[in-house]
Amino acid sequence: MRAIVNIGLKKGVLDDQGKAINNALGTLGFKDLINDVRVGKQIIIELNTNDKSKAEAEVTQMCEKLLANTVIEDYTIEIVG
Amino acid sequence: MRAIVNIGLKKGVLDDQGKAINNALGTLGFKDLINDVRVGKQIIIELNTNDKSKAEAEVTQMCEKLLANTVIEDYTIEIVG
Repeated sequence: MRAIVNIGLKKGVLDDQGKAINNALGTLGFKDLINDVRVGKQIIIELNTNDKSKAEAEVTQMCEKLLANTVIEDYTIEIVG
Repeated sequence: MRAIVNIGLKKGVLDDQGKAINNALGTLGFKDLINDVRVGKQIIIELNTNDKSKAEAEVTQMCEKLLANTVIEDYTIEIVG
């Protein structure tokens, strides 16, 4: 199975990288089209299990222990395949 | 509308960050569970338009011009809302 983990900054946390991309896209002529840009990470993990609930539980542990900084980041987990 | 852009390294391109996460998760006791880890970016863009096909075309331009390095990265665009 495959776990797709999306990690992004919590609302209210300043997203410097998003602001930089927003500015850069503005200079490229997309200024009027864009309201906001936010940048996160996507981590794709190939798992050696066919047990979906086990996969979800284990990947949640991975997020809490290593992948996400839960003080400033939110994460979502999607198990596919 | 919102565009969700996922950018990841092409197959065959060495993913150092993914390897590092793989090793770190291994030391945390997840070694037997994990086959492979790959890391990408997720960029979420809030758009000032309700025209889905225009949104797709413009965001594709953003990816080609700035967001993705198409030599080594693939991207997918999802328009929602």
